[in-house]
Amino acid sequence: MNRRRSTIAEIAARAGVSIPTVSRVLNNRPDVAPATRERVERVIREAGYVRSRVANALRRGSSGIIDLVVPDLDSPYYFEIIRGVEEVLERTELRMALSTTHDESRRERQWLRQVIEGATDGAILVLAQGQSERLDELRRHRIPFVVVDHRGELGPDVPSVGATNWAGGRAATEYLLSLGHRRIAIIAGWPNLRCSQDRIAGYRAALEEAGLPIDPELIRPGEFRQQTGYDQTCALLALPQPPTAIFAGSDLQAMGVYAALRAHGLRVPDDVSVVGFDDVPIATMVSPALTTIRQPLAEMGRMATTMLLRLIAGEPLDSMRIELATSLVVRESCAPPPSPDR
Amino acid sequence: MNRRRSTIAEIAARAGVSIPTVSRVLNNRPDVAPATRERVERVIREAGYVRSRVANALRRGSSGIIDLVVPDLDSPYYFEIIRGVEEVLERTELRMALSTTHDESRRERQWLRQVIEGATDGAILVLAQGQSERLDELRRHRIPFVVVDHRGELGPDVPSVGATNWAGGRAATEYLLSLGHRRIAIIAGWPNLRCSQDRIAGYRAALEEAGLPIDPELIRPGEFRQQTGYDQTCALLALPQPPTAIFAGSDLQAMGVYAALRAHGLRVPDDVSVVGFDDVPIATMVSPALTTIRQPLAEMGRMATTMLLRLIAGEPLDSMRIELATSLVVRESCAPPPSPDR
Repeated sequence: MNRRRSTIAEIAARAGVSIPTVSRVLNNRPDVAPATRERVERVIREAGYVRSRVANALRRGSSGIIDLVVPDLDSPYYFEIIRGVEEVLERTELRMALSTTHDESRRERQWLRQVIEGATDGAILVLAQGQSERLDELRRHRIPFVVVDHRGELGPDVPSVGATNWAGGRAATEYLLSLGHRRIAIIAGWPNLRCSQDRIAGYRAALEEAGLPIDPELIRPGEFRQQTGYDQTCALLALPQPPTAIFAGSDLQAMGVYAALRAHGLRVPDDVSVVGFDDVPIATMVSPALTTIRQPLAEMGRMATTMLLRLIAGEPLDSMRIELATSLVVRESCAPPPSPDR
Repeated sequence: MNRRRSTIAEIAARAGVSIPTVSRVLNNRPDVAPATRERVERVIREAGYVRSRVANALRRGSSGIIDLVVPDLDSPYYFEIIRGVEEVLERTELRMALSTTHDESRRERQWLRQVIEGATDGAILVLAQGQSERLDELRRHRIPFVVVDHRGELGPDVPSVGATNWAGGRAATEYLLSLGHRRIAIIAGWPNLRCSQDRIAGYRAALEEAGLPIDPELIRPGEFRQQTGYDQTCALLALPQPPTAIFAGSDLQAMGVYAALRAHGLRVPDDVSVVGFDDVPIATMVSPALTTIRQPLAEMGRMATTMLLRLIAGEPLDSMRIELATSLVVRESCAPPPSPDR
């Protein structure tokens, strides 16, 4: 096919850039100026260029399929990751095969069998709980894989992408402290999850730095779901001295916090401030819009896919474990605490 | 493989039901009692049964892939459909290849080429706009397909699944009328979409039946997005006689309605009632929880997949065009209009 005749050198010449620059664009590296990236991508589009290593793989008898497996399809959270994977794959000739395991070992075995028998070029796994068995099986069948390990459970020897949970926990707490809050509650995931431990550690670090005591009553574990946010908020409001700010472990939990506060006749942020975690689309849709710690889920999906394409091409990874930065996104759900004399 | 030796007759015997009942369960027919369905499904799981027609297809050299193409991955709406497709496929040996077109013809051509060259057993298309060219191309390559045609644009000769938009438009309006509202606004999609036309027709029918005039000022078109809900609500509130109830064209639009009302110091439902359309998960997460017209998106995905599996197996469809019922889901966002003497 004509489209395969384009080469990186031709593209570099047409775009007026160096060959390494074209490579950087193809590999989704950050160190390319936006205008340059756009010019190169336009030339690629116009020339109908197909990544040569992928084209090579197709000639070698590649399946043309990348497998993405997620625990479930019931949260905006997973969809953000899926979107990121898709954004990278749509620039290739590869299709995404999407599967869910529902955390059932039967489904996991079925998926492994499909992937191994049905042929795949590589797999991206969003882990529910530590499932090292599955990873061993993929290794044994020489299937390249990368893990989106948002929970931080894996060691540095597994190709994985995570987020800086500790820094996120600290940033949320520091922000609430800066507004004047002193009674700050944190709703987290279950204590056995690394991401929960890390966020709570960040929360504690910020409080300790401010010279404030840690009140174990204000640290509430649970599921990353709306119901947990609701139930734990009710429990927090029943304390002799309720918190003036609640830092939720997910935006979905924060929606439960909103509902519980509303049920108690309390207003956000006038009476109680709320911070979420994740920054899924719902955060901008609710009123007041949710201030949250952005976990770059789509970027994590993109990064994992870029790493997997390198592994498939037999290229070395710069690092096996990458953590993307979380960041505070200020919207409308936080304010100074109500004055005590109201 | 051992798992392939199980037959429908064996399953029927083990579950203590008739062979047609097992078939009905396998084909996801509604006419099976829930307890019976569960018993049959448990036997199927325990026996490791694989749908024989799919197993046959695999032996015939099937690709093992069903393609699902959606316009975008930016809405909970598409994710509900994806979830439905996955729920049916996870009971088969087929994997789902998920692609997006972003409404770009370049991406559509790329997808078609991938599907045709890369092998597929069949395709489910969620149409953005009428794209009959693509359907012709699939026909030419003898690729079975079903369209999830939520916008109602296709004729009865294309295998498709839709929803009853007219009935949904009427049900929402009748509900608001029953609460005592007389100034009811509708925010819809663009007027060229069949689904918009149908919902507005349902809205008009309800008003006319109640002997109320149609005020063109209260019919506001736009995108199915939050921003449209926000902008059109601001426009409605600027009318000399603003509406006391707003029926939004999507739950995302309704989120924009909520935000605009809040920005104007108006409460839902005390000052203005709001009804959404779709019933995506966000409807239960906001406060007040959104009363909405449920469009059974996951069921539409399931139904399309079941139809496609029949087409792949060479079985006839009961009907080429199926419309699933919409239904009113009452939550907290509607109340009688405020009394005029307040």
